[in-house]
Amino acid sequence: MRTVSEVLAGFRPARRTATERVTLADAHGRVPAESVRAPHDLPGFARSTVDGFAVRAADTYGASEGLPSYLTVTGNVAMGRAPDVTVAQGAAVVMPTGGVMPEGADAVVMVEHTQEAMPGTIEVVRPVAPGEGTVRADEDAVAGAVLLPAGRPLRAQDLGLLAAAGLTDVTVQQRPRVAIVSTGDEVVPADTPELEVGEVRDATAPALAALVLEAGGEPELHGIVPDDREALDRVLRDAVGSADVVVVSAGSSVGARDETATVVADLGAPGIWAHGIALRPGKPTLLADCGGVPVIGLPGNPRSALVVFRLVGMPVVRLVGGMTDPPADASVRARLSRDVPSAAGRRDVVQVALRGGAAVPLFGASALLTILTAADGWIEVHDDATGLQGGTEVEVKLYR
Amino acid sequence: MRTVSEVLAGFRPARRTATERVTLADAHGRVPAESVRAPHDLPGFARSTVDGFAVRAADTYGASEGLPSYLTVTGNVAMGRAPDVTVAQGAAVVMPTGGVMPEGADAVVMVEHTQEAMPGTIEVVRPVAPGEGTVRADEDAVAGAVLLPAGRPLRAQDLGLLAAAGLTDVTVQQRPRVAIVSTGDEVVPADTPELEVGEVRDATAPALAALVLEAGGEPELHGIVPDDREALDRVLRDAVGSADVVVVSAGSSVGARDETATVVADLGAPGIWAHGIALRPGKPTLLADCGGVPVIGLPGNPRSALVVFRLVGMPVVRLVGGMTDPPADASVRARLSRDVPSAAGRRDVVQVALRGGAAVPLFGASALLTILTAADGWIEVHDDATGLQGGTEVEVKLYR
Repeated sequence: MRTVSEVLAGFRPARRTATERVTLADAHGRVPAESVRAPHDLPGFARSTVDGFAVRAADTYGASEGLPSYLTVTGNVAMGRAPDVTVAQGAAVVMPTGGVMPEGADAVVMVEHTQEAMPGTIEVVRPVAPGEGTVRADEDAVAGAVLLPAGRPLRAQDLGLLAAAGLTDVTVQQRPRVAIVSTGDEVVPADTPELEVGEVRDATAPALAALVLEAGGEPELHGIVPDDREALDRVLRDAVGSADVVVVSAGSSVGARDETATVVADLGAPGIWAHGIALRPGKPTLLADCGGVPVIGLPGNPRSALVVFRLVGMPVVRLVGGMTDPPADASVRARLSRDVPSAAGRRDVVQVALRGGAAVPLFGASALLTILTAADGWIEVHDDATGLQGGTEVEVKLYR
Repeated sequence: MRTVSEVLAGFRPARRTATERVTLADAHGRVPAESVRAPHDLPGFARSTVDGFAVRAADTYGASEGLPSYLTVTGNVAMGRAPDVTVAQGAAVVMPTGGVMPEGADAVVMVEHTQEAMPGTIEVVRPVAPGEGTVRADEDAVAGAVLLPAGRPLRAQDLGLLAAAGLTDVTVQQRPRVAIVSTGDEVVPADTPELEVGEVRDATAPALAALVLEAGGEPELHGIVPDDREALDRVLRDAVGSADVVVVSAGSSVGARDETATVVADLGAPGIWAHGIALRPGKPTLLADCGGVPVIGLPGNPRSALVVFRLVGMPVVRLVGGMTDPPADASVRARLSRDVPSAAGRRDVVQVALRGGAAVPLFGASALLTILTAADGWIEVHDDATGLQGGTEVEVKLYR
């Protein structure tokens, strides 16, 4: 029996995905396999950051409303072109925001701080310091600087920076292929129109597939295996041979769970790493390392299986996919509407609905899926706590 | 000039996407167009929730370690099958977790609370109440009950519940098609290998495309238009005619921005809704309603454009896509490492890096993209605040 903290820190099978090149259009959320460096200075030329006049800053020193500096307008800079003018002492050149700084100028006066004195001459009513109203050629990035770190999934602005640098493809980790195996004599496919008494449709596999996508993986559904040791062994061996991570929802009865453990123990060295974790729901979770491939045996009931996979399965998928700096869970703070009991030495996951700023715990048999669908998020009662009192401020992690 | 709050509450063009049917495999994150109801009771039969013995609860009343109830084991229930036994007074039937409750029984005693007295007879050492160790046939959902609301994107557990109910496809809103138009004489495609002096690659379009995906939309890149009124009019008319939302990154200079505003004002009634919003960065934002289609004119520099699109563009995409209950932003609380100045009547968005639990504001010219890529998230200084003092606890919304 391991604690959740032990699992998160210690269950680290060696499997990592290979790398591939993807274009910017496919790169959102993907994980750079190496840090990305600037191929050249960015933006690459000194630019104006305001609409106004390129000047020599020294020509504006001491300028004020009462005693403006008078400058002669000697030309203008067009967007997207190299300037065909230079700025001499006492001169000013019309600048658009983003234009190239002309030679001789070291600052841009905002148009709001000038007025036309007569055609061809402006009054500057505020001084500018050298560099004001401009960015340097290497101010966004110096050639060779690290633009983006390895291991952090690419966000919108990261794609923008890659585009600015002309990097239209990027080396990323391949998405981990996650085999999902359902077991249970009572389990039938979701598209079964009419159930016999005693049958239930497979709710776990489609939900796990969605969580695999959220963790950056690619789900592979391996179907439903009856509670039969040979059949399970065959399907799991095939999955361990072809996938990067294997997830099996164990049968819900103790006999079926024992069967799963026996088969998993035989799949490859070093084998079972944890048989049971100090988590409710989720105690009968099985974790194994089969030749580097993580195998995760989930509890049989869908609600417990989803809680465990969020808490300990998604981090494993991210690890295998090279995501060393995963995004944080979305969360809000709220006050508990009532006491939540727990036991020391065990982590409890309790679904909550958010109602008027309060976190209302949703209790019910762990077999009930509607507790999960009615919930806005969950709270965790940590290993060393014996429960939480009503009114306590808690962190609610949000389902999304 | 409108405040951000006014924009979020008031800018609501009428366009909504049509609906379509998608299968469960494609339904993650999609938005149900109508509430989904249970086609039958769930789970559909009374089930055991523990491994143990199905009994009549009354037979266990008063049972204790010292004075157990003795019951005769009269059969067992197999997983996934209708029971072929009934439970009479004084009898117990072996039950797996998830098995069908046999007639006559009203509770299941956990195996841990029993022991074998002699072959065929068990001792029950704790009483059970009627219903204990079981769920009713309609306990997860009664036929006809609302399983999932319209307007809330489908989460992993929602897909699980749909599968459990045998609903393998679902009516959702179509993803809003979002036309992205870049403008600016200085802007060239991201795949331009060598830049002339004065040119910049289009960083905004690929980053906006990623944000459109995050908001549940489908980006359509309409390329780069030079700062030319007729060309812009042609491209925007085409975009308004074909897309559900139109986003145009206006030229960065004041002349180019005026040009964009003139063209947008002509695109269709009722026309421009806001010309300028009280937001920094993002003041020169343009919002228009062109025959129901929202047209969003973003500032020319990529960093400002991305701030504005996150704050006011993504909510518009979600609105058009029928997402009335969008997921919350991910956030953490942290203490500001230093003062952040602002002005009353304006909302400020300030990027921050999280370092050792502190939120460190990242300042720099709004033209710098690396401020955004170095940031873990952002804080907002609200309209009525004149700044935030160092040490204040702030909500950091996380980029992801």
